[in-house]
Amino acid sequence: MMKEYRELTKAELELMLNGLEAEYEQQKSKGLKLDMSRGKPSTEQLDMGNDILKMVDYENAYFAEDGTDCRNYGGLTGIPEARRLVGELLDVAPEYVIVRDNSSLNIMHDMISRSMSHGVMGHTPWHKLDKVKFLCPAPGYDRHFSITEYYGIEMITIPMTGTGPDMDLVEQYVNNDADVKGIWCVPKYSNPQGISYSDETVRRFARLKPAAGDFRIFWDDAYVEHHLYEDDRDELLELLGECEEAGNPDIAYKFCSFSKISFAGAGISAIASSKANLDYILKSLFFQTIGPDKMNMLRHAKYFGDLAGIKAHMNKHADITRPKFEAVVSALETELSGLGIGSWIKPKGGYFVSFDALPGCAKAIIALLKEAGVVMTPAGATFPYGKDAEDKNIRIAPTFPTTGELGQAMELFVLCVKIASARQLLGQ
Amino acid sequence: MMKEYRELTKAELELMLNGLEAEYEQQKSKGLKLDMSRGKPSTEQLDMGNDILKMVDYENAYFAEDGTDCRNYGGLTGIPEARRLVGELLDVAPEYVIVRDNSSLNIMHDMISRSMSHGVMGHTPWHKLDKVKFLCPAPGYDRHFSITEYYGIEMITIPMTGTGPDMDLVEQYVNNDADVKGIWCVPKYSNPQGISYSDETVRRFARLKPAAGDFRIFWDDAYVEHHLYEDDRDELLELLGECEEAGNPDIAYKFCSFSKISFAGAGISAIASSKANLDYILKSLFFQTIGPDKMNMLRHAKYFGDLAGIKAHMNKHADITRPKFEAVVSALETELSGLGIGSWIKPKGGYFVSFDALPGCAKAIIALLKEAGVVMTPAGATFPYGKDAEDKNIRIAPTFPTTGELGQAMELFVLCVKIASARQLLGQ
Repeated sequence: MMKEYRELTKAELELMLNGLEAEYEQQKSKGLKLDMSRGKPSTEQLDMGNDILKMVDYENAYFAEDGTDCRNYGGLTGIPEARRLVGELLDVAPEYVIVRDNSSLNIMHDMISRSMSHGVMGHTPWHKLDKVKFLCPAPGYDRHFSITEYYGIEMITIPMTGTGPDMDLVEQYVNNDADVKGIWCVPKYSNPQGISYSDETVRRFARLKPAAGDFRIFWDDAYVEHHLYEDDRDELLELLGECEEAGNPDIAYKFCSFSKISFAGAGISAIASSKANLDYILKSLFFQTIGPDKMNMLRHAKYFGDLAGIKAHMNKHADITRPKFEAVVSALETELSGLGIGSWIKPKGGYFVSFDALPGCAKAIIALLKEAGVVMTPAGATFPYGKDAEDKNIRIAPTFPTTGELGQAMELFVLCVKIASARQLLGQ
Repeated sequence: MMKEYRELTKAELELMLNGLEAEYEQQKSKGLKLDMSRGKPSTEQLDMGNDILKMVDYENAYFAEDGTDCRNYGGLTGIPEARRLVGELLDVAPEYVIVRDNSSLNIMHDMISRSMSHGVMGHTPWHKLDKVKFLCPAPGYDRHFSITEYYGIEMITIPMTGTGPDMDLVEQYVNNDADVKGIWCVPKYSNPQGISYSDETVRRFARLKPAAGDFRIFWDDAYVEHHLYEDDRDELLELLGECEEAGNPDIAYKFCSFSKISFAGAGISAIASSKANLDYILKSLFFQTIGPDKMNMLRHAKYFGDLAGIKAHMNKHADITRPKFEAVVSALETELSGLGIGSWIKPKGGYFVSFDALPGCAKAIIALLKEAGVVMTPAGATFPYGKDAEDKNIRIAPTFPTTGELGQAMELFVLCVKIASARQLLGQ
């Protein structure tokens, strides 16, 4: 009969730890070299998109449907067919979409930068305010938090629940504190937990009554079609429509990226929002750039065609990534269930598996992994300022390694969890 | 014997004006529709680069020479072969180059934006200063001036001479006024005059002793290989080396773009500067983006190979654009020489012909052209705040129209110059 670690005697724990440490030394001697620090698509996944590169390499292939020569200047909003494609993906009309180059993070950064320097639609530029605060549901996406930290914006951690951020807390802050100017959200298959916001959560977002007229929801719909299962998918309520209905038409920016649809280094990305927000953004984009790379938009629009095309492609991604996610979850279940030294969520989509160790163990686990050749996202990275107050959350990124490598890495992972937990309980 | 307009009697001028106006009405009835407002490559020029689109569309074509899979994330500096190619183009070592996406204007904007929000290498962020000033050699590039205006930077017009900006004035401002943080330069085949800075001008730039430690030269080498003639080319002294020799290693940023080499809408662009400047920029780029489009860098590196490849391609551009430039200059010479109502510079490269009308006539000429269906860059655009104090400079962009269209446009242009000048002299 399996016992939880905390039920073991000191002697039992010590004996077990000795064995685990011996096993760890053996593992270490294998000389693993694996980087699982980022959610990167695998080569196999990238290969699936290679035909995208052939979409504009023939005679007269460079005209957009409105006659635009995509090789020449112009077109700040993006070409019509790309706006339509993204519109379908984000469930909004094409006129509410601006398509840009390959990095949605860049769009988000620029949105923050623009709000700092020029304000939001006539409001005081944020850099002139004594204080600007952002709400950061956590665990969350480290690169979101990096941007707000870079701009000296005070970040307030909002705990995640099974249905999204703690909305009582969100409402309390947003509706009462005029310094709160924004919130970072990954509403579907959230990074790193794979949680999708419930309809009620989305509606509560749409119905916020912000104290600040320039408060905005930064809704990073990064994993909108990134399901793992054909028959068990999360559906996210469309935010912009809800906001308009609630009398908050300008309260949200939606972002999306093809980085994990086509190519992580050569996709397209987009922002969707109200006409008023987009007009303001376009005015600023005029000063910012001579225009986007329309040829790459054309490649994407021609290859995918419509939402059905994207969905079909995403199914192929799922066929590659699903076994990897299942290998991770299976290793955790087989090796850690019932031991009381960690918990995890089995995701139905997205790019990560989130693991919560015993409080105070995450850094130790990641250090052990590193010593044995496996680099993970640094402990704490999923929290504002890189500080996980409980030092427990670890983000596992299963997609890039081969299944074989992943097996080795997970074998090591559970071993490190066990060692760190035993040491912790022994007060070492 | 041809007389200057100002030597004609009132009656002679009136009689002539009547005839010119009748001719103008005739021209107007042709219903021309031509946009000569921007320096856009023609379709024929774009066609020359179509093979670039085929450089990565075959099996395993997506690896950079260091093994990087360009389809995946990463690589903030750009791939090695692209850095080397740009390095050759800008005559600097590859390690002093960061390659980015298609818009060099975007790099320049971001440099200003970053300096506003975070300062330059440890100096006070510009937005915290009471005043920030930029020197603007004029006539110059309107999109440069737009950026500094957007950020509320005070622009000081520096007159252009035949060897570059008035360096006495530049030295006086830069070396004495700590509010002066930068200067916009298009040092070779300048926009719009086609003037290349002399060696002496470049050396005086390198030897500036700025009052502000965070003063930077924004050296937009947009037309570095954009010669019109094989045997009559301007050579520009390389700035960064001169700066280093002069003990000013961090004083300058060089920018370049492939927009007028490969595709105006789908090229690559770059910044070159000292290691210290690049390190500072890279730290900021980390927050700004997940990475550039490396596939497009690879396309360019594979297609051009090296500087010789670029030069060969630029010769083909010149074969297309040279007759257009010559048609413009020839129309001016044939129709306006000796009339004392305008002056121009015959360029040896670049993208524009600069025309100076009689003071007070530029707006009127452009309005007449517009009424007859030819859209030019707005009068004043070549000066800070869009204000040409003398209302005389007009930028002619010969590349985009066909030779036939250009002929019609120039016929109309000289007519409008004559009408506006006659009216001006008659006090109408």
